[in-house]
Amino acid sequence: MDFASTLKDRVQVIEGILDGYLPPIEGPQAHVIEAMNYAVRAGGKHIRPLLMQETHKLLGGQSPALPAFMAALEFIHNYSLIHDDLPAMDNDDFRRGQPTVHKAYGEALAILAGDGLLNLAFETASQALTLDDSPKTSKALQILAQKAGIYGMIGGQVVDIQTEGQSIDLETLVFIHQLKCGALFEAAMEIGAILAGASAEEEKAIVAIAADLGLAFQIQDDILDVTSNLEALGKASQADAALGKNTYVSLMGLDKAKEKVSRLTDRALTQLRTLPQSNAFLGSLILALCGRAY
Amino acid sequence: MDFASTLKDRVQVIEGILDGYLPPIEGPQAHVIEAMNYAVRAGGKHIRPLLMQETHKLLGGQSPALPAFMAALEFIHNYSLIHDDLPAMDNDDFRRGQPTVHKAYGEALAILAGDGLLNLAFETASQALTLDDSPKTSKALQILAQKAGIYGMIGGQVVDIQTEGQSIDLETLVFIHQLKCGALFEAAMEIGAILAGASAEEEKAIVAIAADLGLAFQIQDDILDVTSNLEALGKASQADAALGKNTYVSLMGLDKAKEKVSRLTDRALTQLRTLPQSNAFLGSLILALCGRAY
Repeated sequence: MDFASTLKDRVQVIEGILDGYLPPIEGPQAHVIEAMNYAVRAGGKHIRPLLMQETHKLLGGQSPALPAFMAALEFIHNYSLIHDDLPAMDNDDFRRGQPTVHKAYGEALAILAGDGLLNLAFETASQALTLDDSPKTSKALQILAQKAGIYGMIGGQVVDIQTEGQSIDLETLVFIHQLKCGALFEAAMEIGAILAGASAEEEKAIVAIAADLGLAFQIQDDILDVTSNLEALGKASQADAALGKNTYVSLMGLDKAKEKVSRLTDRALTQLRTLPQSNAFLGSLILALCGRAY
Repeated sequence: MDFASTLKDRVQVIEGILDGYLPPIEGPQAHVIEAMNYAVRAGGKHIRPLLMQETHKLLGGQSPALPAFMAALEFIHNYSLIHDDLPAMDNDDFRRGQPTVHKAYGEALAILAGDGLLNLAFETASQALTLDDSPKTSKALQILAQKAGIYGMIGGQVVDIQTEGQSIDLETLVFIHQLKCGALFEAAMEIGAILAGASAEEEKAIVAIAADLGLAFQIQDDILDVTSNLEALGKASQADAALGKNTYVSLMGLDKAKEKVSRLTDRALTQLRTLPQSNAFLGSLILALCGRAY
């Protein structure tokens, strides 16, 4: 089967996993649960659970806790998008070609749906402790919390918001990208590795690959923001420039940005090949993510 | 030592625990960390960690994981206050006599400080898994996530926000109170019991006490909202009426509300006395909470 078909199949499996962990839309809380479902089922590409699963597979893992962590990470990603889109933050009206959660459900419910998803993430991941009661599971849970928190993703959001409209240096921009996007990529691959019982050396290699991939993916996103349009991207293009956002492209120019993506991708793939195990699909996925081939 | 002095001492110990788990205000994320510290150190009474500690003590517990859970629960309580006070939610300018977090730090940072505290709560609680690697710890973590989530506290907030300005029946009001306030009281006492290795029967009794106490405390809050003033309460009084909030007092009148608090308190104390163990301070604390004697 070719890459695109395999990818489609695996994303469908992930959608099934997410459905299994999303609460049913019923009861007095139905409205917030609907908003949570709306966000998670809005046609995201589920890159992070996919990376977690493929890293786990690469290292020969078979942890029964894996699906719970895949869902938890995707819930965290989606809560962060809901809150990022709020009027007080990036004030975005569209996401993946659909109205953002606060546009569809109002601001109060968007705040609570985000809170609900972040909480559900940890509820889901903590259930995993009973599915696989080895120390690997609690280590994975700690990594999840660290990478999502103020020294991970939230830290990136904070510095991003604070520097909006200011000119910043490349170092600060890379800091923002590494935390805001890279941290959850690292969580994805590191948790996949940990649950597979990776050695310290393997785990280190995986985190290095994830860090390069996360940064490459975010710079690629900066590139797409200036070269793409609403139809292809599902959100208003050049939105970064309108917000006075610093991007890799605004700081370094389009050519240097493309060069950087290419160098990071090569380094990630070289690192991947140093591992004794192999997962051809993961290699293709990394390429596809950095070129946005799908 | 009398109750007030003992209480003061124990609250100081809790403040020390919270300080130990709050991140230092430094680095590129200093601003959000400052906002998180501002919220947690704003002079709250730390009722929930106190109830957890005293329940743990009642049942003879000595879990090294206890302080982490005490801090985690207080962080969850504080994140929920930050988000509840936001303009899109209750739009409160003051809390505990000080400007609310969004008034002091702006709305974007308030959203992120709330997210940061919720995440820090689970980061802190998941660290507890390495402090006490018994199944009790992972059970406590699951209870924490459940009681804070959409079937716990967040569920109460959702129904509260949705019914604002509408007339609701007593059943709905009690549902809101039980989830919005009661759920974290239940988490406090249940986690304290679980970490102490409580039997199923003891755990059940403790949850029943916590549920009565949580509801009594919230009705007492409704009573204070109409009878107290800004100075005593640290927030604008009669704020509920101004927001068109349904309260126990608006639905049932002041006398019936006072009667209900009294009945719930008696039942909680009777239940507490059925347990073979005793903790006089916990009994006094329950009385004080329901009469707001401190």
